[in-house]
Parts: sequence; structure tokens; C-alpha cells
Amino acid sequence: MKLEKIILASAATVLAIGAGSAFAQFQNAEKAIEYRQSVMTIINTHFGRIGSVVKGTAPYNKDDVSKNAEIVVMMSTLPWQAFGPGTEGGKAKPEIWSDNAKFKAAADKMQVAVANLNTAAQSGDLESIKKAFGAAGQTCKGCHDDFKKK
Amino acid sequence: MKLEKIILASAATVLAIGAGSAFAQFQNAEKAIEYRQSVMTIINTHFGRIGSVVKGTAPYNKDDVSKNAEIVVMMSTLPWQAFGPGTEGGKAKPEIWSDNAKFKAAADKMQVAVANLNTAAQSGDLESIKKAFGAAGQTCKGCHDDFKKK
Repeated sequence: MKLEKIILASAATVLAIGAGSAFAQFQNAEKAIEYRQSVMTIINTHFGRIGSVVKGTAPYNKDDVSKNAEIVVMMSTLPWQAFGPGTEGGKAKPEIWSDNAKFKAAADKMQVAVANLNTAAQSGDLESIKKAFGAAGQTCKGCHDDFKKK
Repeated sequence: MKLEKIILASAATVLAIGAGSAFAQFQNAEKAIEYRQSVMTIINTHFGRIGSVVKGTAPYNKDDVSKNAEIVVMMSTLPWQAFGPGTEGGKAKPEIWSDNAKFKAAADKMQVAVANLNTAAQSGDLESIKKAFGAAGQTCKGCHDDFKKK
């Protein structure tokens, strides 16, 4: 099973579980908002560290980039459970709920892109990392443009 | 290699890398504080979900508890890098830096305890989960008593 398939399967499980079980229950909308913002902070930190390498402002070190990519992949499955019904607020646009299928498609796209970034990171080929980083960054931007308030 | 050894080795790597490389650099203290608080929010969420099962306020479901325990273990390696020199602030007591060896020992203890919780969670034995949850909770409390402002 390819990594992106594992990630998608894992994400699908999280989303499916999220529908009705104790796995994904938040006490209230504020807790859900705090949670998803926390996940995004961690993704942003580690994705940004890879970005510094890609932009040449930090030296390339395979182990560091690999570790950062692994964390981004792990974290990429988590935020979606915190966008359940009744958790509107924060920087989330209402379209997350009114056009949920589009939001879920964007979430899936991001998870595949960061899985590809992780594959590139583990390979140690900086050119592949740069390409995969750019593609992953586009999925962040695309989803934020549509679903995140400025 | 036992899981707790893997976790400890991994944590040691993170701490070692954290000393000087791009892996663990934060732009400023505020970014480090935001990061470590975000990690704690996520740990608290998933640890709390296991707690609800342990306390009997949520039904026991092996898959849910296993998934929550896996996330706690993953996250347990992350906060320490964000307590580097010059990152004082937030709810962190100065003893984190003035008695850093004690803080690191407490951090290691927590990581072993949540690794044990994960082992119990994967086994599916609720009594073991309860015991391991209690032990892990004690390491949270112990460290917070010594190093976190009220």
C-alpha cells in the first residue's frame, strides 16, 4: 500500500469515526477551534522549517527535513475532526459547512500532497523535496483562500 | 527494541537535534510558547478522551482508545524542543531552565508513561488501560506541579 493510500485510509477512518463516536467529541465549539488552531500551528511550524531549507535560508539536512515531514504527515490527519457541525467560529469561513464536500476534497488533497512531501523527504533528493513542497504549499493556499478568513 | 526505548531514543534525538540544528529553531520566544501550548492542547484533548473512558463517562471502544493513545505518544516527543534557552514565558516556571536536568527527567518519565499507556491501549485490556492512564496522569501532574504556573 502506498503511503498516500495509507494516509487517505487513515484520514477516512478519522473522518468516519468523527461522525459519531467518542474519538472526536469536543466539549464545545471553543475547544474544537482551539484544537484545530493548535494543529495548524504545529503543521505551520514544521512545514515552515522545510520551507526555510527549500528557500535556502537554512542548510539542507536530510534527517531534519525527514523528521519535519513526518510530523506534518502525522498532523495532517487531525484537524478535520474539529470542523464538525456546530463548531463554526475562529477563522473558519461558513463555506466549510455549506460546501462541506468541497472542503473535504481540499483536505484530502492536502493530505496526499504532504504524504508526497514526506516520500520526497525520506528519499533525500532536494529537488524532489522542493517540487513536493511547492505542490503541498499550493494545497494549503488553495484551501485557505476558499475556507479561511483573512 | 521495546516501545518505551524507541520513544526515549526518539525523544533523545529530538533533544539532541534541538541543541543546535534547524530542526528546532523558533523565530522567537512567542513562537516557541505558542508551539508548546499547541502541543499540550492536543495532548490534553486526546488524553482527556481516554480519561472519559477510564472514568466511565464514555463507552470503551478499543479502536478509539488506541487511536487516541497513538496520538498522545506521537505528540509526547514534541514539546521539549520548544523549551530552549531564551523561551521563558507563558505558564512556564523559571525552574525549567534553572533546574533543567530535573525538567528533562520529568519529560522522559512522561514519555515512558504514555508509551506504556499506548501499549495497554493496543492490548485492549481495559484494566491495564486504567492503570497505565493513572500512572501517565501522575507524570503530567508531577511535572505541572513543579514546572507550570497555576
